[in-house]
Amino acid sequence: MDITVNRAAIYAAAEELSNWGRWGPEDQIGTLNLVTPQDVADAAKLIKRGKTFALGLPLTEKIQSGLFGGRWNPIHQMLATGTDAAAGVQDIGKAYLRYADDAINLPMQCSTQWDSLAHIFLDDKMYNGYPATFVDVKGAKKNGIEHTKDKMVGRGVLLDVARWKGLAALPDGYGITNDDLDGTAAAQGIEIRRGDFVIVRTGQQEACLAKGDWSGYAGGDAPGLSFETAYWIKSHDIAAICADTWGCEVRPNETDEANQPWHWVVIPAIGITMGEIFYLKDLAEDCAADGIYEFFFCAPPMNLPGGCGSPINPQAIK
Amino acid sequence: MDITVNRAAIYAAAEELSNWGRWGPEDQIGTLNLVTPQDVADAAKLIKRGKTFALGLPLTEKIQSGLFGGRWNPIHQMLATGTDAAAGVQDIGKAYLRYADDAINLPMQCSTQWDSLAHIFLDDKMYNGYPATFVDVKGAKKNGIEHTKDKMVGRGVLLDVARWKGLAALPDGYGITNDDLDGTAAAQGIEIRRGDFVIVRTGQQEACLAKGDWSGYAGGDAPGLSFETAYWIKSHDIAAICADTWGCEVRPNETDEANQPWHWVVIPAIGITMGEIFYLKDLAEDCAADGIYEFFFCAPPMNLPGGCGSPINPQAIK
Amino acid sequence: MDITVNRAAIYAAAEELSNWGRWGPEDQIGTLNLVTPQDVADAAKLIKRGKTFALGLPLTEKIQSGLFGGRWNPIHQMLATGTDAAAGVQDIGKAYLRYADDAINLPMQCSTQWDSLAHIFLDDKMYNGYPATFVDVKGAKKNGIEHTKDKMVGRGVLLDVARWKGLAALPDGYGITNDDLDGTAAAQGIEIRRGDFVIVRTGQQEACLAKGDWSGYAGGDAPGLSFETAYWIKSHDIAAICADTWGCEVRPNETDEANQPWHWVVIPAIGITMGEIFYLKDLAEDCAADGIYEFFFCAPPMNLPGGCGSPINPQAIK
Amino acid sequence: MDITVNRAAIYAAAEELSNWGRWGPEDQIGTLNLVTPQDVADAAKLIKRGKTFALGLPLTEKIQSGLFGGRWNPIHQMLATGTDAAAGVQDIGKAYLRYADDAINLPMQCSTQWDSLAHIFLDDKMYNGYPATFVDVKGAKKNGIEHTKDKMVGRGVLLDVARWKGLAALPDGYGITNDDLDGTAAAQGIEIRRGDFVIVRTGQQEACLAKGDWSGYAGGDAPGLSFETAYWIKSHDIAAICADTWGCEVRPNETDEANQPWHWVVIPAIGITMGEIFYLKDLAEDCAADGIYEFFFCAPPMNLPGGCGSPINPQAIK
Repeated sequence: MDITVNRAAIYAAAEELSNWGRWGPEDQIGTLNLVTPQDVADAAKLIKRGKTFALGLPLTEKIQSGLFGGRWNPIHQMLATGTDAAAGVQDIGKAYLRYADDAINLPMQCSTQWDSLAHIFLDDKMYNGYPATFVDVKGAKKNGIEHTKDKMVGRGVLLDVARWKGLAALPDGYGITNDDLDGTAAAQGIEIRRGDFVIVRTGQQEACLAKGDWSGYAGGDAPGLSFETAYWIKSHDIAAICADTWGCEVRPNETDEANQPWHWVVIPAIGITMGEIFYLKDLAEDCAADGIYEFFFCAPPMNLPGGCGSPINPQAIK
Repeated sequence: MDITVNRAAIYAAAEELSNWGRWGPEDQIGTLNLVTPQDVADAAKLIKRGKTFALGLPLTEKIQSGLFGGRWNPIHQMLATGTDAAAGVQDIGKAYLRYADDAINLPMQCSTQWDSLAHIFLDDKMYNGYPATFVDVKGAKKNGIEHTKDKMVGRGVLLDVARWKGLAALPDGYGITNDDLDGTAAAQGIEIRRGDFVIVRTGQQEACLAKGDWSGYAGGDAPGLSFETAYWIKSHDIAAICADTWGCEVRPNETDEANQPWHWVVIPAIGITMGEIFYLKDLAEDCAADGIYEFFFCAPPMNLPGGCGSPINPQAIK
Repeated sequence: MDITVNRAAIYAAAEELSNWGRWGPEDQIGTLNLVTPQDVADAAKLIKRGKTFALGLPLTEKIQSGLFGGRWNPIHQMLATGTDAAAGVQDIGKAYLRYADDAINLPMQCSTQWDSLAHIFLDDKMYNGYPATFVDVKGAKKNGIEHTKDKMVGRGVLLDVARWKGLAALPDGYGITNDDLDGTAAAQGIEIRRGDFVIVRTGQQEACLAKGDWSGYAGGDAPGLSFETAYWIKSHDIAAICADTWGCEVRPNETDEANQPWHWVVIPAIGITMGEIFYLKDLAEDCAADGIYEFFFCAPPMNLPGGCGSPINPQAIK
Repeated sequence: MDITVNRAAIYAAAEELSNWGRWGPEDQIGTLNLVTPQDVADAAKLIKRGKTFALGLPLTEKIQSGLFGGRWNPIHQMLATGTDAAAGVQDIGKAYLRYADDAINLPMQCSTQWDSLAHIFLDDKMYNGYPATFVDVKGAKKNGIEHTKDKMVGRGVLLDVARWKGLAALPDGYGITNDDLDGTAAAQGIEIRRGDFVIVRTGQQEACLAKGDWSGYAGGDAPGLSFETAYWIKSHDIAAICADTWGCEVRPNETDEANQPWHWVVIPAIGITMGEIFYLKDLAEDCAADGIYEFFFCAPPMNLPGGCGSPINPQAIK
């Protein structure tokens, strides 16, 4: 496509691609409506070897570097320890229990995660026309992550764009085009279908892992989907779009008239669920080895009423 | 079985039922080794209608009442809100983004959750003989939840003991026997197999939900598995044992010589993964309706190196 | 005074008592301007015996019971422990250090605390006319607690209303009148002066401590200042008003047209700093014993830019 | 003094300088016992101009850079906002209140702070011979910060070593000697007395503030007190030792046989309270201007039973 990305293009795309009202005025899950029970049953048939891939990055990776929004790396804290147990401090009375216990304090988007449809606004509205003010300091009154608690199941498809390009990783600033997505799918011999969970691999995360340096990963420059892919997403009616990067979208952005212009469209207008920071190395290598890029996908979010996102550990099963 | 539960019985059971070394001296996942890739592939065939049940209790339920160990109810906090967005405070410069963002601070075991094998000690040891002191204030150096990141997938079986007994909920203090488990399975026409994720329903949680009162749920009296079921678990070589209660085990405990005597055996000695506080109402009703008590089960934990447990939203798919 | 408390009375009081602009359009500390350096120097002369009273309630008291606003009791967590140290797990290499370390997670107002002038709004404004929207999810852009970092020092005066009334504790719902304040001061032989930190004792907190039960303390019924005391506060030009209760103000409130009607006036209009949940037992007994109800007062807040309050441990020194 | 710092020197100093038992076997506050009520009353006479200096660094300074122990920068979070208020979302029913509310999650030692005597161990003991295992994951059973709740008051003395040396900041690695301390005091015309709160200025913190870069401040190289000053501290019988650096002690350390060798002695053996990360710029400039380096000092800790430290905002009043 030939699009000059600017505010006008954003509003034009938002209007053209809008799914507001498509699943009724009360809908809160957007494109996840596109997955039918039959799709889930069909996707189950993709499980052949019983091989499971965990797509959640270890939460001990310190990927937050302060570039965006006050997010921190997960804080894992102990409420009871084995050293305490072994020192006997838990042995109170005869009927004691020696145990360890812990807690975690983490931003929803500090690592592998789902965005909910309450995450991004277009002006003062969110998906399906709900007012932005429905997301206050108590959480999201509409479009919260809890509505997807049993919806993150279906056919997963990996589009390994980096590998198709013959690169370990796409360079920062590279905007993946619709032709790239189609070219990758064609080369992989895979068809994109209505209701798919499409996962795009740029290789950027693996480059960070390899060098042990996350500088710039969270909020800095990155390869990613270009603005035009909003049209691709809508025309393919996929259920979700995921990537191995911090924000799916190419950075620097394609315009200086908006931060994350593609986000302005895909979440509020299309109502698509977005997955970010997916760990794809093992899955991608397996797909390259057996030539099979589709799999059963199951990535349950926290059942948190009002959540604007959720940490996840998605499972791809072949 | 005819067991007088006391310290001697605990140590005898721990010795007789021990799986230490069974999967090698380096093993850290215990009975999850019992699930083979073929089991996963076979379990996938149980997905017929494509109907998914989310077994995670809403994290807004205030189930912690301070009876145990300093756990708190989840604290959900906003890092960015729609009210801020609508008020224009995010519109800094031309290239802004209007968004909501959030974080959560929660004990691993404050709601629906997995225990890792680092959760319970027998004296100064944990599963497979690792010293308890390997779980210090930095987390678990062995038996952490991360080792199960891709292992919580397989055949799920619901044993609806309450329904079999004709009760909305088993009474507090009722200890489920091996005969109860076998009787329920027989009545349901289901076979328990090696590598199963067995989920026991007492109805207690639904009673709390119905009356809107969680007093005593977390750490108080409860129906649950009796001590002898440790033998049942071992003889059936199941992969995991789960329930709708706070701690799976009957309370008051069957002895005053230990707190949670069954825990002393099943986690450290058998090395079984335990799931607690599962929300079972919808799944149980569906199983009762169609008479099918087996399903594909997928309950990925957080990929948290060193975690002694993990909040989860398990998925049962039929 | 003869006031029917309702919305009209609130707006009338707010207009009559307003300090907006009194210390310039940029002022952010309100009545703390009333304390002069000479006042501090004079207050120092009240230190005679060198006896210090800590007015901070122990943070382990579980006073939050969920009645208000999602506050929790302080969560104290360890980052390093002596049991770890003794177990040798900190002895990494030769150059180690054996230590303990900890953290705390607490609402500003979960225990003894200052409100900042950003804490309460009158319609869409806060003290000195700043828009309420200046307090967003990132904190207070105006009237934050940091502006008081060196201002919480001066002459403290205890008004022991409960003791004057001959009661261990004023009953819940008792509204302290202007005559009560004047009567207590007169009986104590103390003069209230411009710039004083006035601390009112109801005895309610000590009743909770004595019975070991905080039910209703945080947000329930309580004795406290009646609406008319807003006029007393303004006419005496005191620097701060403090009490041993959760919210200083009588509850149930004197109207059903507002929650905390006195708050609507005193913080946004008068711009007075408010201290709550002060522990007064020891100080009050000492004052009763020696008949001296004035003292040097020093209660530094956290130096937190944007804070809407701060936990404190105020010091009264005689 | 001529000391080769090594393990032997540490144990020798710990034995020679020990205050264990000096204030009885039950003592938990160490050198704070050296401050008498008369000292407090005398210190009050140092308040002449009524000028107060807040020595707490703003908690928004991002000083933690991950070099030590898993500490994080303070996390300030809102529970209620003015944008919510202005949007009307708090106007529930007629009797509403428009307000802002917040919380903070911070390591005790992430910014300006007191160590408690439970912070550092010598082998398996802490101050006064209590076992290190008394500090478990629930906090400190002995030597907790709560015992100092009303003890952090007295005569403060600034030793501006950097200014005496004619430097903006002492260089990293510079170990302040006993002669430096005596030389500074002499040049300032000030006498160090029993029970003083001695505050040492290196200028390092101001250098970080000036360049807006905290790299290395928390746990990296720094100027600071050399090992021999442990002897100076004991011989002067001061109450507390404070500095503008992260850890008071010179880094790199003077030996490779211990991390923070001076800490091994001064906290566990001498039982001295230590204050770190004090903001001293304004106070130091004032002292240089009027030539008066003594003042009333009041730095109340949180009243947290079991705390191993406390964030503070110390007040120096001249």
